[in-house]
Amino acid sequence: MDIDALLTSAAINTGLSVLLFSLYSILRKQPSNSIVYFGRRLASLNNRNSRNHFSFERFVPSPSWIVKAWETTENEILAIGGLDAVVFQRTLVFSIRVFSIAAVMCLFLVLPVNYYGQEMKHKHIHAESLNVFTIANVKEGSRWLWAHCLTLYIISCSACVLLYFEYKSITKMRLAHITTSPPNPSHFTILVRSIPYSVGESYSNSVKKFFTDYYSSSYLSHQIVYRCGLVQKLMVDAEKICTKIKAVPNGQPSLKPCCLDNERSAAFVIFKTRYAAVIATQMLQSPNPMSWVTELAPEPHDVLWSNLCIPFRQLWLRKIVTLLATVVFMVLFLAPVTFVQGLTQLEKLSQTFPFLRGFLKQDLINHVLTGYLPSVILMLFLYTVPPTMMLFSSVEGPVSRSGRKRSACLKILYFTIWNVFFVNHVSGGFLYAFNMLSSVGDIPVELAKAIPNQASFFVTYVLTSGWASLSCEVMQPFSLLCNFLKKHLRRNHEDSSDGLVSFPYHTEVPRVLLFGLIGFTYSVMAPLILPFLLIYFLLAYLVYRNQVVNVYIRKYESGGQLWPIVHNTTIFSLVLTQMIAIGVFGIKKSPIASGFTIPLIICTLLFNEYCRQRFSPIFKKNVAQVITRNRFAFESPSSCLSKVQFFFSCSGSYRDG
Amino acid sequence: MDIDALLTSAAINTGLSVLLFSLYSILRKQPSNSIVYFGRRLASLNNRNSRNHFSFERFVPSPSWIVKAWETTENEILAIGGLDAVVFQRTLVFSIRVFSIAAVMCLFLVLPVNYYGQEMKHKHIHAESLNVFTIANVKEGSRWLWAHCLTLYIISCSACVLLYFEYKSITKMRLAHITTSPPNPSHFTILVRSIPYSVGESYSNSVKKFFTDYYSSSYLSHQIVYRCGLVQKLMVDAEKICTKIKAVPNGQPSLKPCCLDNERSAAFVIFKTRYAAVIATQMLQSPNPMSWVTELAPEPHDVLWSNLCIPFRQLWLRKIVTLLATVVFMVLFLAPVTFVQGLTQLEKLSQTFPFLRGFLKQDLINHVLTGYLPSVILMLFLYTVPPTMMLFSSVEGPVSRSGRKRSACLKILYFTIWNVFFVNHVSGGFLYAFNMLSSVGDIPVELAKAIPNQASFFVTYVLTSGWASLSCEVMQPFSLLCNFLKKHLRRNHEDSSDGLVSFPYHTEVPRVLLFGLIGFTYSVMAPLILPFLLIYFLLAYLVYRNQVVNVYIRKYESGGQLWPIVHNTTIFSLVLTQMIAIGVFGIKKSPIASGFTIPLIICTLLFNEYCRQRFSPIFKKNVAQVITRNRFAFESPSSCLSKVQFFFSCSGSYRDG
Repeated sequence: MDIDALLTSAAINTGLSVLLFSLYSILRKQPSNSIVYFGRRLASLNNRNSRNHFSFERFVPSPSWIVKAWETTENEILAIGGLDAVVFQRTLVFSIRVFSIAAVMCLFLVLPVNYYGQEMKHKHIHAESLNVFTIANVKEGSRWLWAHCLTLYIISCSACVLLYFEYKSITKMRLAHITTSPPNPSHFTILVRSIPYSVGESYSNSVKKFFTDYYSSSYLSHQIVYRCGLVQKLMVDAEKICTKIKAVPNGQPSLKPCCLDNERSAAFVIFKTRYAAVIATQMLQSPNPMSWVTELAPEPHDVLWSNLCIPFRQLWLRKIVTLLATVVFMVLFLAPVTFVQGLTQLEKLSQTFPFLRGFLKQDLINHVLTGYLPSVILMLFLYTVPPTMMLFSSVEGPVSRSGRKRSACLKILYFTIWNVFFVNHVSGGFLYAFNMLSSVGDIPVELAKAIPNQASFFVTYVLTSGWASLSCEVMQPFSLLCNFLKKHLRRNHEDSSDGLVSFPYHTEVPRVLLFGLIGFTYSVMAPLILPFLLIYFLLAYLVYRNQVVNVYIRKYESGGQLWPIVHNTTIFSLVLTQMIAIGVFGIKKSPIASGFTIPLIICTLLFNEYCRQRFSPIFKKNVAQVITRNRFAFESPSSCLSKVQFFFSCSGSYRDG
Repeated sequence: MDIDALLTSAAINTGLSVLLFSLYSILRKQPSNSIVYFGRRLASLNNRNSRNHFSFERFVPSPSWIVKAWETTENEILAIGGLDAVVFQRTLVFSIRVFSIAAVMCLFLVLPVNYYGQEMKHKHIHAESLNVFTIANVKEGSRWLWAHCLTLYIISCSACVLLYFEYKSITKMRLAHITTSPPNPSHFTILVRSIPYSVGESYSNSVKKFFTDYYSSSYLSHQIVYRCGLVQKLMVDAEKICTKIKAVPNGQPSLKPCCLDNERSAAFVIFKTRYAAVIATQMLQSPNPMSWVTELAPEPHDVLWSNLCIPFRQLWLRKIVTLLATVVFMVLFLAPVTFVQGLTQLEKLSQTFPFLRGFLKQDLINHVLTGYLPSVILMLFLYTVPPTMMLFSSVEGPVSRSGRKRSACLKILYFTIWNVFFVNHVSGGFLYAFNMLSSVGDIPVELAKAIPNQASFFVTYVLTSGWASLSCEVMQPFSLLCNFLKKHLRRNHEDSSDGLVSFPYHTEVPRVLLFGLIGFTYSVMAPLILPFLLIYFLLAYLVYRNQVVNVYIRKYESGGQLWPIVHNTTIFSLVLTQMIAIGVFGIKKSPIASGFTIPLIICTLLFNEYCRQRFSPIFKKNVAQVITRNRFAFESPSSCLSKVQFFFSCSGSYRDG
C-alpha cells in the first residue's frame, strides 16, 4: 500500500462518514424517528406529542447535534447516564490525551527517523510505500533507535500518569456515588442464598430465626424469593396479554400475590442501617461456607430475577463450565469461518454444486462472491459474538444485570483481543496462533516480526471498522428499520418505550479498548496510524455523548465497575507494546535499546501493582468511614419500612421480567 | 541396581536406624540430656531436679518411648502441641492410609503385571534388575495397562475421599479451636497500621478519635507501637546483661516504660467484644485503602515485634522483591553447587593448586574427595535453605511468627519440589530443566520418560534421606552437642529453657509432602518403592509424636493453617501423577488408557474446586455464627480490662525479643 492508496481510502471513508452523519442530522429531525434518536429524552419527559409541523429546515443537514454533544458537561452526563457513562467518557478522554502526546512525539521525532532510516533514493511522497514510514525502514544497528526508545518512555510515562489521575478521580466519584446517591432500598438490603432446609420449617421462618438470633439489633424484615410454577407462568402470560389489550399504563406493579408460588432457598433481608447490611455481607455467616451466603442486593431494576432461583451449589460448576465454553468458543471461532469462507472459492463451490457452474461463470457474481462474501461471512459470524457471550454470562448465574453485562464485557474483550489482534498478526493464521499458545514466550517475538508489516492492514481497519462503527452507532440502522416497519406495515403510530435499551457497554468498551491496544502497539512502530486513530477517538467522544444524552436509558448501573477493566487492559497494552519493542530492537540488533526497555516494563508492572493496592479495593469492598458517615440520614424505621414496601413492589412487578 | 543391592542397602539402613534409635533410647535416659530430649516437659513442669541416681537400666536400650508415643491420644497431642501439631499428625495418618491402599493394589496387581510384562527368561529373583519391576518392563501396546489405569483410579479416588474427610474434621477442629480456646486478649484486639499523620496531633490521639468516631459502641482502648531508639536499645542490652548476672527469673516483664521511645504509625486497638474486633478487620476503614489498615492481632507470643515498625506502604514492594529473590534462589541454587562439586574433580583441583598434586595421589584422599565430598557439599548447601527462606519471609514483613513460618514453609516446599523432584528427573540437569520452564507443556512428557528409570534413585533416597532424617530428628545431634559443650566446657550445669524451640513445621512439612509426592508419582510406575515409604511414614508418625510430647514447646500456633498447604500439595501430586501416567501410557502406545485418565484429572480438579468452596473460606475468614455464639462470655468490661493489661505487659516484655 502506498500513500496515494491510503489517502484515497481515507478520502472515501471520510466522505462516507460525512454523508452518514449528514443523513443522521436529517433523520433525527423527522418526528417519526424521534423514538429511535431521542428514546431516553422521551422516556424521561413522558411527552410524546409529535411535533408534526412541516418545515424546510427538517431536510437540511446541520452540525447542531455535534455542538450540543460538545457542550454537555460531565455533571450532566453523570446525572443522565450515571457513573458508568462518565467512566466510558473518561476512557475516551484518556485515549484522546495519551494519543495526542503520542502523535506529537511520533510524527515529529519517530516518523523522520523512519523515513530517513536507510540511505535510499526516496520517490515522490505520493508514490512512497507505507513501509517507508515504519520502523522496518530503519537499518540494523542504527543509533537512531534511541528515538524510538525515548518515545516509548514518554508514551508509557504519560499513559501511567494519566491513568493514575483518572483512577484517582473515578475512585473519588465512586465514593461520592455511594454517599450522595438518593436513598435506595437496595442499600439496606442483602441477598441471602442457599438457606439450609430444615424439616418442618419454612424458609421464611428459618430466615427470620437466623437473623433475629444473630442480627437482633439491626434486622428489620425479609422477603423470600418465589419461583413461578407452570400455572403461575400461564397466569403471568395471560395477564401480559390482558395488559396489552387494555393498554394499562406500564410500570406499575400489577402482579397479585399468588398461592401457587414455590418458595426458593433465597431471600432478601432488610436491615435498619446501611452499615449493618454491609457487615452482614462481609462476614461468613455459617460454619458451612456454602450455606447462608450473603451479598449486597442489587438495585431492584438491576436484579436478574430468573437467576435468583439457581441453587447456589451449582454456581461454581456453572462458572467453570462457562469459562471452558468461552475459551473453546474463542479459540475455535475462526475455524468455521475459515471453512465457510473456503466454500466461497469458486472452484470448490462449483465442485460441490455442479449445477451452479454456469451461474458462477458470470463476472458480477464472480466479483461479489470472491470480493465481498468472505468479509460478509466474517461480519455475520462476528455479530453472533455479543449474544453468545451474553448467553454464557447468563448461564454463569449472576444475580444482577450489571454483573452479567460486566462479565460479558470481559469475555468479548478477550475474544476481540485474541481474534482481531493476535490472530491477524500471526502469519500462519489461527491454527498457527493456536500452536503458539503452547510456547507463550515466543508470542512477543512473533508479534515483533509481524507488526511493521501489518501496519497497512490496521490503518485500513481503523478507517473502515472504526469510523464505520461510529456512523452505524449514531444512525442506529436496526432500530430505524424496526421503527419504520412498525409504523408503516403494522400501522402502529404510537411510540412506546418498550424497545428502549440501556447502553451496550459490553460491546462498546471492548471496541474502544481494542483501538487503544492497536494505538499503543503501532504508535512507535508505524506512527502514521495515529492521526486516523485520534480522529476516531474524537468522533467517538462526540457520538457516545450524543447517544448517552439522547438514546439510551439508564435502568441500572454498576457504579464505575468498568474502570478496573479499562485500567487493566491499558496496562496490558502498554506491557505488550514494550515487549514487542524489545523484540523489534532485538531484530534491529540494538541490544542497548532492548536493555533500556526492560526497566520500563518493570516500572509499568510496579505502577499497576501500586494502583491495585491503592485504588482497586474501593471497587470491591465498601468503606466503613463512608457508609457510617451517611447512615444516620435514613435511620427512622418508618421511612425504612416504606422503602421496603417499594422494594417488594418492584420485586413483584419485575418478577416476570 | 538389582534386588540384591536394594536389599543390602535396606539392611544397612535398617541396621543404622535400629542402632541410632537404640542409642537414642539410652541417651534420653541420661539426666544430663534431659533438657535436650524432654525440653517441653521440663518447661511445663518447672521441675528441674536432676534424677542423678545411677542405675544399670539407664544403659540398656528399650522401646518404651515407642510404646508411649503410640499410646498418646489425639486429644493429648491437641492439648500439648495445639491444632498445628494435630494437623501435622493427620497429614502422616493420611499418608499412611492412602499408601497402604496403594501398596496393596500395586504389590498384588501392578507388580506381577510389570514382572511378567515381557516374554523373557527371568533370572533368579535376587539378581533381577529393579527395572523389571517398573512399568518400563511392560511391552508397548499391552492390554494389561488397564491394571495400571485401574490402580491409578483407585489411588486417586481413595486419596480424594480421605482428603475430604480429613479436611472436614480439621475444619471442625478449627471451629472448635476458635470457640473453645481459653479467653485470649488477642481475640479482642486488632492491629491497625498506616495511621495517617496529621499535623499537631499524636498518633495516639488520631487512633482514639477515629475509633471513638466510628466504633463508639465497641471501642475500649488502644496501645501505640513504639520503636526503640538507639539509646533505648543500649538500655535494653544493659538490662539483659544485668539480668544474666543477677540471674533474675526469666519470663517476667522487666522493661520499664521509657520516654525515649518513638511513636510509630501502628497501634493495637482493643474492643469490647470479639465480634466487633472481627468486624473492624473485615471492612475497609478509609477511602484510601492504604491507610487505617486493620487485621486481627496475633497472640502476644506470636507477634513479630520487629516487623510492626515496617511502614505499611513498603509491604507490597517487599513481597514482590522477596518473591523474585525466592524464585532466583530456587532456580539458580544448583549452579554454585555444581560449580563447587566440579572443583572436587581431581584433575581440575590439581590444575588449580599444583602443590597439592602429591597429596591428591594418595588413594584414601582420592576416595574421600570423589566419593563423599560432592554429596557433603550438596548437604551443606541444602542446610542453608531453611535459614535463607526464613530470612526472605522475615523481610516480607509478616507481623506474626506463625505467619512467617507458614510463608517459609511454602517457600521451602516449592524449593524442595523443584530441586529434589524436578531437577533430578530431567536428564540434562538443572540447565536443561531451566530451559524446560519455557515450554511448560513438555514437562509431563519429560517426567514420563524419566520416572521409570529414576526409580532406583528414589528408592535409595527414601531409604537414606528419609530414614536418616528421622533418626537425626529423634537424636537431635545439634542440641546434644551444644548441651554437651555447655556442660563440659563452660561448666554450666544449670538447665535453662532458653534454647527450647517450637516445632520446625517449615522444614518438616515440606519433607513429608515431598515423600508424598514421590509416593504418588512412583506408586503405579515402580511399586517397589511403596513398602519403604510406608515404613518411613510409620516411623515418622511415632517419632514426631514423641517429639511433640517431649521436645518442642508451643509458643504460638496458626490454628490449622497448615492444612490447606497439605491439601493443595496433595492435589498437585495427584494431578501430576495422572499427567505423568498419560505420558507413560502414550509412550506405551495405549491411547485407551491415556484417554481414560483424562476424566480422572478433570474430576480431581473439580474435587479440589469443591473443597476450595466448601472448606477453605473457614481458614481465611471468621464465622459470624461461631463468634457471635461465644461473645457474651467475656463481655464484662472489667475482665476485658485486665486482659488488656496483660496484653500490654506482654508487649512490654517481648518488645525486645
